[in-house]
Amino acid sequence: MKFELLTKDPTTRARRGRLHTAHGVIETPVFMPVGTQATVKSMMPEQLRELEVEILLCNSYHLFLRPGYETIAKLGGLHQFMGWDRPILTDSGGYQVFSLSTLRNISDDGVQFQSHLDGSSHFLGPETAIEIQKGLGSDIMMVLDDCLAYPATHFEADKSMKRSLTWASRCRNHFQKIGNQNQALFGIVQGGIYPDLRKESAERLVGMDFPGYAIGGLAVGEPKPVMYETIEQVEPHLPEDKPRYLMGVGTPADLAEGVARGVDMFDCVMPTRHARNGWLFTSGGHIVIKHAKYKDDPNPIDASCQCPVCRTYSRAYLRHLFIANEILSSVLNTVHNLHFYLDTMRRIRQFIELHHFEEFLTEMRRTGAH
Amino acid sequence: MKFELLTKDPTTRARRGRLHTAHGVIETPVFMPVGTQATVKSMMPEQLRELEVEILLCNSYHLFLRPGYETIAKLGGLHQFMGWDRPILTDSGGYQVFSLSTLRNISDDGVQFQSHLDGSSHFLGPETAIEIQKGLGSDIMMVLDDCLAYPATHFEADKSMKRSLTWASRCRNHFQKIGNQNQALFGIVQGGIYPDLRKESAERLVGMDFPGYAIGGLAVGEPKPVMYETIEQVEPHLPEDKPRYLMGVGTPADLAEGVARGVDMFDCVMPTRHARNGWLFTSGGHIVIKHAKYKDDPNPIDASCQCPVCRTYSRAYLRHLFIANEILSSVLNTVHNLHFYLDTMRRIRQFIELHHFEEFLTEMRRTGAH
Repeated sequence: MKFELLTKDPTTRARRGRLHTAHGVIETPVFMPVGTQATVKSMMPEQLRELEVEILLCNSYHLFLRPGYETIAKLGGLHQFMGWDRPILTDSGGYQVFSLSTLRNISDDGVQFQSHLDGSSHFLGPETAIEIQKGLGSDIMMVLDDCLAYPATHFEADKSMKRSLTWASRCRNHFQKIGNQNQALFGIVQGGIYPDLRKESAERLVGMDFPGYAIGGLAVGEPKPVMYETIEQVEPHLPEDKPRYLMGVGTPADLAEGVARGVDMFDCVMPTRHARNGWLFTSGGHIVIKHAKYKDDPNPIDASCQCPVCRTYSRAYLRHLFIANEILSSVLNTVHNLHFYLDTMRRIRQFIELHHFEEFLTEMRRTGAH
Repeated sequence: MKFELLTKDPTTRARRGRLHTAHGVIETPVFMPVGTQATVKSMMPEQLRELEVEILLCNSYHLFLRPGYETIAKLGGLHQFMGWDRPILTDSGGYQVFSLSTLRNISDDGVQFQSHLDGSSHFLGPETAIEIQKGLGSDIMMVLDDCLAYPATHFEADKSMKRSLTWASRCRNHFQKIGNQNQALFGIVQGGIYPDLRKESAERLVGMDFPGYAIGGLAVGEPKPVMYETIEQVEPHLPEDKPRYLMGVGTPADLAEGVARGVDMFDCVMPTRHARNGWLFTSGGHIVIKHAKYKDDPNPIDASCQCPVCRTYSRAYLRHLFIANEILSSVLNTVHNLHFYLDTMRRIRQFIELHHFEEFLTEMRRTGAH
């Protein structure tokens, strides 16, 4: 994997880059739609290609439990399994173990947990996390990290960060033993909201020389300013020639704020999950499609949107599908919301190329399109 | 609307025709997928076009209750509302009033009923049925008929058939008053399983000179041989130069049996509903995709199928999507099942053109692909 830094915005920390992977080139900054169970909910891969999705994120935890990574490996890996020939990033499974499973028993070795599906008992340690992701065959793998709850004391955050460092090192060692050159492993900076811990985490991870670095442990309940500040604290400690990935973030405004602070990659369930709940993004803010005022509305979701849904369907039809609980409601809403996110990223990349990203940021802050 | 009879099979009653409508030409025999609530469940219109769907059926009852035919009319009609520019057939709403609603009060004037959605009270009579379908703007409208339960006595069937005739006449009169030349109204032959009643119904409807005739009241629980016999009894009384439509039928084998008895048009929820339940049609019979034996199965649903799903996805992936309750399961299964039905009809048309339909029929009876 190779990262090219193409240009930098002169007045912000925004960067325009290009990430070369075994399954193709990714233009950064990039938004990665989430395909939890080897499918971006309601989307066919060809629809994602038409939307110009460059890379997907899939969740190791879910695929580990069902259908099992050995099954997917036997069937040729995740790309073949789900019919997606562009890049895939997988998380380590850690975050879902901490957020979805029950009866966790955490030690320095890893986490013993019970499946949220059937209560069955499983173990996830650094080496397992690598085995799973190798089996899935993702282009970018993530180290296993200890996921800290918010709020946490400095003591707790320090302990958790140090455990994450140990796991990162073990992941790296196991990856060097069993990984192949078509896969890359990213480190994850932890340390809660404490600048000294974030600095230590970043520096020690950089010492291990990963091909990319994620900022983890954000968007877990902390105030927005704290999230932005934490990114600002971490960023100077990360090497300029490696991609930076802000995990699980966020609203369109968050993407712009992240980019302004030097982030290259984002993932979030927001566009797809909100779509299924009838919450639709527009250039003038969001609309909730079930509202009665859209019953006879012949207008598209967003008159300035060029997506296939806005070119064809009225709010009245989309409201009808939502109220009638039709599957097509999820499909069309997802197409629109993903287009909104991907188009936001396209515009962000253009503004950086023109060295006018601050203009975009100012406009985003003014309209608050989220 | 114009119907061309292109050729007839020499050894069966199968016909190859072409129906010209305001929204395009339909090659017959044709299968019409069902788009109950102004959407073929889980399908985007472009997917239906790619599958070469020629005409859809939509349900007046559902659209009358939600979002209302006045709303759809105001938004430019059903074609524009749902983004489908090819022909649409609408039923009268009668069948659903009889099967879905509660507290019905039937008189010679029509049916008072309560909505299955919210219990609200509504009236459907012959004139209303025409008003609704005119508002929807379908290419082919159906007369309101009295839907007889199975089994029924000769007395009940006679009374119901005669009421249906009266309603057909009133529908025709109202249609002549308010309909436009882009819409056609079909009559519906009733009479239960009684040959004398079916004959009377057919002859008197033909006397009213409809541009097409449906055979109604079948596939309501009667044995298959009785259904086939009833078609055989009705068919000779229908004019050769008008299309014949067998309502609500059926399995792939039923389609072939219907074609062999002179039927030109079919509709059924079977391919789409079965798809959502994981029941998939194949040339060697059906498969139930949730079965554990498909967990690691790298093969497509049907190796001889050319549909986009069989060209890309394994049974293992489709099983995973079904078990994980993913929306994409419904989408992919629906694409496959609809392709199976539409491909069956394409092959039927080819065999009729070659005057070898009996070969197809024999093969269908042998493999029993349903």
